[in-house]
Amino acid sequence: MVPADLANGASAPGEFDLIARIAARVALRADVALGIGDDAALLAVPPGMQLVVTADTLNAGVHFPDDTAPADIGWKALAVNLSDLAAMGARPAWCTLSLSLPQPDPRWLDGFIDGFLALAARHDVSLVGGDTTRGPLSIAVTALGHVEAGHALRRDGARIGDEVWVTGTLGDAAAALQSMCSGAAVEPSLRARLDRPTPRVEAGRALLGLASACIDLSDGLLADLGHLCARSGVGAEIELAQLPMSRALARFKHEVRWPWQAGGGDDYELCFTAPPQRAEQVQQALDLAGVPGVRVGRIVAGQGVQARDAQGAVWTPPRAGYAHFG
Amino acid sequence: MVPADLANGASAPGEFDLIARIAARVALRADVALGIGDDAALLAVPPGMQLVVTADTLNAGVHFPDDTAPADIGWKALAVNLSDLAAMGARPAWCTLSLSLPQPDPRWLDGFIDGFLALAARHDVSLVGGDTTRGPLSIAVTALGHVEAGHALRRDGARIGDEVWVTGTLGDAAAALQSMCSGAAVEPSLRARLDRPTPRVEAGRALLGLASACIDLSDGLLADLGHLCARSGVGAEIELAQLPMSRALARFKHEVRWPWQAGGGDDYELCFTAPPQRAEQVQQALDLAGVPGVRVGRIVAGQGVQARDAQGAVWTPPRAGYAHFG
Repeated sequence: MVPADLANGASAPGEFDLIARIAARVALRADVALGIGDDAALLAVPPGMQLVVTADTLNAGVHFPDDTAPADIGWKALAVNLSDLAAMGARPAWCTLSLSLPQPDPRWLDGFIDGFLALAARHDVSLVGGDTTRGPLSIAVTALGHVEAGHALRRDGARIGDEVWVTGTLGDAAAALQSMCSGAAVEPSLRARLDRPTPRVEAGRALLGLASACIDLSDGLLADLGHLCARSGVGAEIELAQLPMSRALARFKHEVRWPWQAGGGDDYELCFTAPPQRAEQVQQALDLAGVPGVRVGRIVAGQGVQARDAQGAVWTPPRAGYAHFG
Repeated sequence: MVPADLANGASAPGEFDLIARIAARVALRADVALGIGDDAALLAVPPGMQLVVTADTLNAGVHFPDDTAPADIGWKALAVNLSDLAAMGARPAWCTLSLSLPQPDPRWLDGFIDGFLALAARHDVSLVGGDTTRGPLSIAVTALGHVEAGHALRRDGARIGDEVWVTGTLGDAAAALQSMCSGAAVEPSLRARLDRPTPRVEAGRALLGLASACIDLSDGLLADLGHLCARSGVGAEIELAQLPMSRALARFKHEVRWPWQAGGGDDYELCFTAPPQRAEQVQQALDLAGVPGVRVGRIVAGQGVQARDAQGAVWTPPRAGYAHFG
């Protein structure tokens, strides 16, 4: 059953057209022996590489505001998955898309695919399978890539004394979200960070052999660094004054900013650790990759993550983690 | 963001427990270098093998009746995906699971995972990632396997003169569904075929090098053989009297049975083609695999699939393809 399978063809009226619309626009990498149109895709993993696989779903009203443009939803659905591959230091290659739609709407679908394939093209990712079903709007993506065997960046490699780094700027997406929820006008540059996150694929690749551990920032720095620390059996200290911020965020007082920067989700930057003696190499690698990165803290004995202000006082965010809207 | 990621840990209350419940029960194959608990899984594809990837989603009320037991939903969500791998002649290895649930319900989840992992264990498949989100019940699975490079069974290899085969029996699931929809009592053996389909993995493996083309029967024989013919650029003729049936189905008159056998979906048997001179080898291979299989027609020039009765008259099903309930 499973109607309107990208692979299996379609039984439900209208959905076949949707699949044809998608398949017609997909660009195939040379390592795709068979893409959309059969029971499954056939792919070649290069010798010496491990396969890297991640799956993340976006639901309307939970993972993006209801007014989000279809192209932005398409972009973001792939971006959150490529971000996971980036955090492993993997090179993205292929993906599958399971799309649940309330009704077949070619215009919506065209917009969605515009955004999805724009990001796919940027990272040379081929859409190789999936399905469309009737139901509440939901987008389940599985992203596949590969990494030099034994060299992936993992969460469990942080060691006491390592420095904690983050790429890009933090808190922009959370600032956009909070402004929207309070009915305030949203600075376009902030809204863009919420709607079109940049998976840090180049940074992840550049950090192979340099970073001791890595995670992507989806739930917020404190929460995600906490996951990394838990897997590594260590603790961490963060200096709030060091957290990178965009020009748009610099307008806010730190009392307003810090919860977004330290606790807000949806940034899709990388947080990673590296020994202090590698700091210069790390900085050079990030520069070469064209991705900003700064040190924001260090790995310590113990467990959990402590944030400190410029005076060294422990700071607690007004609420734990990242609450979803809707 | 993407809360309660199997990999990323959790932010929404209650969902972390769900993930822990799943992860604690997962058995890992030796070729899983890293499973649930990091940003992505790390897997080893054996040298000389192509990666085979398929993704299918089940939605409540569309792909299974609302009264389906959680364990049966879990089984079926994986089965429909393994069936696609079977149709390629692939050996299943890993899967990801994106589970959308209206509310965190540990008892429902335990049952679901019982069924999912029971089938996974039967085929030595490791669950290596995914996520849980809040939303209407929906289960998106991506299944991964591998096949000897260049030897996969595809839809596009059927040649004029080939014989058309099917495994198992046809129409049982459609019979169960129609009985349910009309409020009649459902024979348990038929309901079991609807709820717990058997992916024909062993048959697919056995047919490597013997079948010229293959597809799994999800939408119904006429529809799916039609997909195979379209990809191969040929037509097909089916003899209705040859279609295999279960003992439970034999109670029905052929006017009642044929629409289920030829047009009903959800059987998850394999339909494949092979040259007549290979018939004996095919039969032996299926016998060795322990899977029944019979010849039901032949590939002809032209396009489309014609079904004929015992007198050779063309038969048209009362409605095209397979209509979903709900």
